[in-house]
Amino acid sequence: MSVITMAHGGGGSVMQALIKNHIVKYLGGSSAEVPLESLDDSSVIEDIVFKSDSHTVKPLFFPGGDIGRLAISGTVNDIAAMGAQPIGLSSGFIIEEGFPIEDFDRVLMSMRQTCREAGVYVLTGDTKVVERGALDKLIVNTSGIGKRTPELEENIRELRRHRPFNSRWLLDSNIRPGDKIIVSGSIGDHGVAVLSSREGYGFETDVKSDVAPLNMLVRDILKVGGIVKVKDPTRGGLANVLNEWSEKSRVGIVIYEDAIPVRQGVRVACEMLGIDPLEVGNEGKLVIATIPQKADEVLDALRSNSLGKDAEIIGEATGDFEQVVLQTSVGGRRIILPPIGDPVPRIC
Amino acid sequence: MSVITMAHGGGGSVMQALIKNHIVKYLGGSSAEVPLESLDDSSVIEDIVFKSDSHTVKPLFFPGGDIGRLAISGTVNDIAAMGAQPIGLSSGFIIEEGFPIEDFDRVLMSMRQTCREAGVYVLTGDTKVVERGALDKLIVNTSGIGKRTPELEENIRELRRHRPFNSRWLLDSNIRPGDKIIVSGSIGDHGVAVLSSREGYGFETDVKSDVAPLNMLVRDILKVGGIVKVKDPTRGGLANVLNEWSEKSRVGIVIYEDAIPVRQGVRVACEMLGIDPLEVGNEGKLVIATIPQKADEVLDALRSNSLGKDAEIIGEATGDFEQVVLQTSVGGRRIILPPIGDPVPRIC
Repeated sequence: MSVITMAHGGGGSVMQALIKNHIVKYLGGSSAEVPLESLDDSSVIEDIVFKSDSHTVKPLFFPGGDIGRLAISGTVNDIAAMGAQPIGLSSGFIIEEGFPIEDFDRVLMSMRQTCREAGVYVLTGDTKVVERGALDKLIVNTSGIGKRTPELEENIRELRRHRPFNSRWLLDSNIRPGDKIIVSGSIGDHGVAVLSSREGYGFETDVKSDVAPLNMLVRDILKVGGIVKVKDPTRGGLANVLNEWSEKSRVGIVIYEDAIPVRQGVRVACEMLGIDPLEVGNEGKLVIATIPQKADEVLDALRSNSLGKDAEIIGEATGDFEQVVLQTSVGGRRIILPPIGDPVPRIC
Repeated sequence: MSVITMAHGGGGSVMQALIKNHIVKYLGGSSAEVPLESLDDSSVIEDIVFKSDSHTVKPLFFPGGDIGRLAISGTVNDIAAMGAQPIGLSSGFIIEEGFPIEDFDRVLMSMRQTCREAGVYVLTGDTKVVERGALDKLIVNTSGIGKRTPELEENIRELRRHRPFNSRWLLDSNIRPGDKIIVSGSIGDHGVAVLSSREGYGFETDVKSDVAPLNMLVRDILKVGGIVKVKDPTRGGLANVLNEWSEKSRVGIVIYEDAIPVRQGVRVACEMLGIDPLEVGNEGKLVIATIPQKADEVLDALRSNSLGKDAEIIGEATGDFEQVVLQTSVGGRRIILPPIGDPVPRIC
């Protein structure tokens, strides 16, 4: 008998197979502009951007954030990844009997603060309680709806002055050879912070989660113009995002190891644990594909926002092959395969 | 230390207090047309109806349905309760490691079938896996977006020929003295079916869950005109719906015990277990408030649809007091208080 394994929730190739061979197989088939089967960051129907995310992070409170901040940021960021802005969120709470109301209030206060940063409200919700032992404390589902913005329209107009661009949204399939790849800051912080606080490795004093809503940062860079796609590299990390782009856009992507910002604490932790920071999930970073003519301006715009101050151009798309290749510090080349799953479970 | 109890998820007054004093307190404040604080069936912003529901039913498969059918129906029905039609759904799966993929496929197939009945698709989703023991098998979150329809507009136009009606949607606050109260069929079936299959009382051969998407039935009765409000009486049952209407519309409601359809198996089960069928949750029934001039026509429209064939007029709203009163079979009167919670936990 086949059963669900942790890798089925790890954001990598095993999860993609479950989604394609089961969920999309049975539930796909709509005529939405961006339907389920496109497996993009959000769906789009009648110009409404729509996304849902459930959050099972363990522990609920970790250095730099908590499940409330994560729940709001995750869905806001998936809507922003389409180039849209959120106009409303829902929150569904599933709570284990015996959960302290004081902790619930802490989560709610964190959600409120994060909503303020994102400029959006929770409009509707649902509360379920299950008996003690039927759930590990608390799960928060956040769904969201979003809309096109003048900044997205202006970005697309500017793009079309430089090259053909058929898409109305920022999609995984938009990348073309020559596009520059940027990250908005250091990678791996969230996964390492959650893992170390859970397992008590002692890295937690150095490494904090980056969890944050990124819709305002996306708005800033759309004003520059030339943005082809943005995406928050959550489960499966940067390696997963670049492979999704490579596959859906049918391009190769070359990235330069020396250019990728990784904090010292994250680097040390990953070496000790034998995991690849490229595969570790982030919750407050963007990977951005932009036309080369605008890359420096986009970088400047990112760096002038505190959420993007450590942004770097890390590589570019190429038409020479259809894989993700890392140019290492020592001059070698390594193919970055789609991760099987995130090396750290239950980070979101 | 205050902690979450099962009653906090029971759909009654304890849950309402948690929502008002914690969730709305921290997360309310939007300027949406129907915001979080209205605690209506769905929210509305920029004419988009938006709702989210998580499903923790136990067992996952029960007489007459399963968690998949429930997850689609629950959200479709909350959108239909506003007088809208769903245009897209999301599905978020939270799965326990070790869950059989064969069972997951059964749930997905049931979701597909229910989507077909409702004429809607799943457009987006999310999959999380937690380690064995961290969750009781499977939770399904379904969120949905919906829109106004010509049937809703026509219903409101017709209403306004008979009395003032300021609302653009079917809301809990719409009921006025004189409005007739209708149920679309027998009550208590779902809760008793789930309870008896879980606990093995042996009622399960007689009583089946009524779980079904009701948006097409709502469309049918909107065509008649004169519909003031519809609502699916889930957790807390008919008693909870009528008390919400009474409170938000500031009217009294009188219902007649003899007129309320309750199946023999449900009646016997409730008597044996000492629970009130009025407080037991349903998943395929509507409570309808309609202007008196249209009540008979609405009843005919309901009865000509298989989902409403046992519909009955069960009472009416009154301006004489602001409570829910049951006229009993033996000629007495009993005040129906808002239930503290549903007598049967984890039915949805």
